[in-house]
Amino acid sequence: MGYSEYTKHELESEFSALKSRYNDIKSMNLQLNMARGKPGKDQLDLSLGLLDVINSKSNFVGLDGMDIRNYGMLKGIEECRMMFADMLGVKDKNVMVGGCSSLNMMFDTISCMMTKPIEEGWDAWYKVEDRKFLCPVPGYDRHFGITGYYGFEMIPIPMDENGPDMDMVEKLVSSDKSIKGIWCVPKYSNPSGVTYSDEVVKRFAALKPAAKDFRIMWDNAYCIHNISDTPDKLLNLYEECKKTGNEDLPIFFCSTSKITFPGAGVAAMAASEKNMKVFTERYKYQIISYDKLNMLRHFKFFGDYKGLMDHMNKHKAILKPKFEIVLSKLENELKPVGVGKWTNPHGGYFVSIDVAEGTAKRVVQLCREAGVIMTDAGATYPYGKDPQDKNIRIAPTFPPNDELKIAMDVFCVCVKLAALEKLCG
Amino acid sequence: MGYSEYTKHELESEFSALKSRYNDIKSMNLQLNMARGKPGKDQLDLSLGLLDVINSKSNFVGLDGMDIRNYGMLKGIEECRMMFADMLGVKDKNVMVGGCSSLNMMFDTISCMMTKPIEEGWDAWYKVEDRKFLCPVPGYDRHFGITGYYGFEMIPIPMDENGPDMDMVEKLVSSDKSIKGIWCVPKYSNPSGVTYSDEVVKRFAALKPAAKDFRIMWDNAYCIHNISDTPDKLLNLYEECKKTGNEDLPIFFCSTSKITFPGAGVAAMAASEKNMKVFTERYKYQIISYDKLNMLRHFKFFGDYKGLMDHMNKHKAILKPKFEIVLSKLENELKPVGVGKWTNPHGGYFVSIDVAEGTAKRVVQLCREAGVIMTDAGATYPYGKDPQDKNIRIAPTFPPNDELKIAMDVFCVCVKLAALEKLCG
Repeated sequence: MGYSEYTKHELESEFSALKSRYNDIKSMNLQLNMARGKPGKDQLDLSLGLLDVINSKSNFVGLDGMDIRNYGMLKGIEECRMMFADMLGVKDKNVMVGGCSSLNMMFDTISCMMTKPIEEGWDAWYKVEDRKFLCPVPGYDRHFGITGYYGFEMIPIPMDENGPDMDMVEKLVSSDKSIKGIWCVPKYSNPSGVTYSDEVVKRFAALKPAAKDFRIMWDNAYCIHNISDTPDKLLNLYEECKKTGNEDLPIFFCSTSKITFPGAGVAAMAASEKNMKVFTERYKYQIISYDKLNMLRHFKFFGDYKGLMDHMNKHKAILKPKFEIVLSKLENELKPVGVGKWTNPHGGYFVSIDVAEGTAKRVVQLCREAGVIMTDAGATYPYGKDPQDKNIRIAPTFPPNDELKIAMDVFCVCVKLAALEKLCG
Repeated sequence: MGYSEYTKHELESEFSALKSRYNDIKSMNLQLNMARGKPGKDQLDLSLGLLDVINSKSNFVGLDGMDIRNYGMLKGIEECRMMFADMLGVKDKNVMVGGCSSLNMMFDTISCMMTKPIEEGWDAWYKVEDRKFLCPVPGYDRHFGITGYYGFEMIPIPMDENGPDMDMVEKLVSSDKSIKGIWCVPKYSNPSGVTYSDEVVKRFAALKPAAKDFRIMWDNAYCIHNISDTPDKLLNLYEECKKTGNEDLPIFFCSTSKITFPGAGVAAMAASEKNMKVFTERYKYQIISYDKLNMLRHFKFFGDYKGLMDHMNKHKAILKPKFEIVLSKLENELKPVGVGKWTNPHGGYFVSIDVAEGTAKRVVQLCREAGVIMTDAGATYPYGKDPQDKNIRIAPTFPPNDELKIAMDVFCVCVKLAALEKLCG
């Protein structure tokens, strides 16, 4: 029986009991953090071997025949280009391996198109004063941060269990030349964990944008991050785009940040040869070469794609119980009272929850005051503004399991308390 | 007795002898490269220990108290910020440690100002259609590449043994609001090896630019790269700027690329707090954190500033003989016939030579055809255009000494041959 069926008296009695429980929690002086998608210490320890595979006695000449300790190889070492080609589902000739951050590569990609046209005869985006970008919501705050920084008007596109609302995407993209792109996390989406359906991918490949310089920013951050024994499958967008003659539409990104060490991993991007020509024309002035020793380190640590997948299974063994803790707490604490609607992802880094409308900010505030830091409410929307103030991203990876259990207890109390404040208000 | 005093017959006889020597060289099928400022293998080997100072058993919590294997610390680890503060002559609070490339940080810095004003009330540079940048010549081709990419009109400023022509700089900068900056390699300048005099540094600090958003790009790439026992001293520009109230004028850059491994080192920048606020506002959207493991690796390898300087002395021991080979070849082969004018630097990576006017391109071509690759003639000038076609950059670091001797022999033959082609032509 949910709160909606409670009598006034029952609601007040529950409210009073929860307030008392909340005060008990506050007196515990907790300091817990579920704000960001940071790997936990046990996950970091999985990659310690990465630091031993290269040492002073290593061989530094790889497939390219060059001493990788020196300048050169703008697009990265061939060994790593091959590895990322497998991850991204493209050919190695389309891959550029970069520094330690795919976010940086996405920023540079947008930055490039801001001042240089990606299509001949079209203006650099800086010149398009009413430039716009589509932002599936809930989505990744750092994506929105980039297009926000560059002054795009950001249009939220609702997500459902199949991906973004493609009717809306098609309608907008085909009619408005000032719409220049869309942010996508197509597999185990941040934060909902949704993987785009085959139909959604095919509809992306078949888009007919009014703007010839419209681009799909396909951030495949979680492409191999399964936490379920029945992992999702994502259709290969590049292959679909080849069929529709839309090869220049997508730009692909991924990294090892959540595979080895965040900030000390290796990132990569891929796109059609025509697109890569424009980006490489920028990269060749921007840098001589990225860190090839770290590329070699990653290649040697994994060995091959199978080695990489074996490594991911170790992450899965750590993450699966964490997601189970989160979901069982939500099931046990919130489902009975009919508050909240959440996702049950097969992979990725997050659980997305819609709490009672108009209470997300209050929930995060209550958590903070009780010593549990959550991602800011609204962060999953452009400009940090969730119009219904209901979505919260839960990031279960960083806290140890015993802390996660306590943090989720606190979170559930706060979700119920905020709902009751509204109902009893 | 120089060529200018030769009789016609003597010239022709010399010409004929040189052609014959050149043909002998060609038949050797050499493959030598003096094109880029790449460290040689023996220099790379000096830093092999860098790859052993961190391993799976290391402690990953540093001065900041955080596990550096995880996300965070946008401005880099404190240990490295302190090290670079010493190198750059600023406080650590002014330092941002970046990825593996100071070129990348310079590119990002210009890129930032292209779309966001560095001074309130002034336009982003993209909007300044007649934007200009001052380029001391001969200078560094990759600097010119950045401002060329971003569509600046580049104005060459002649260099002498004290640095750029400051009369010209002052006159231009104080009168033209569309001049937005100047590229400087103030110590052991690329390619001349000149270190800016105290007077030049003071005049930079005292500039009164018409454009409030004018900035000095102070690329201190060779700040600790001595090859002489009497190293040059460079006045601290930031201290001078504090005296003149011009703290926002300079932006400082350096890296360990030519200290440890090119492309796998650590780069840093520094500027006033007001400037850094604008750059950090961009970096916070661009990246979460750069490779802190590589920062820690560098800190542990050097230990402290003294350790760093000890390491530089090992480079010096390798580089000094290389510069001696170059200079003695020029002295023995070119001085007697009065062709060419070159520098005798106390540090850095290059020797700059002016060959007979109108023959630089020809010299480089003759070298190439004889199997010796030099930096392209003109590369030391904006747009690759040396108006007098006379400057060539010699990069002696990469070839082993026996190859360097042969390469310099070939080079000297080509310089004389090109001069005689002109005299006898």
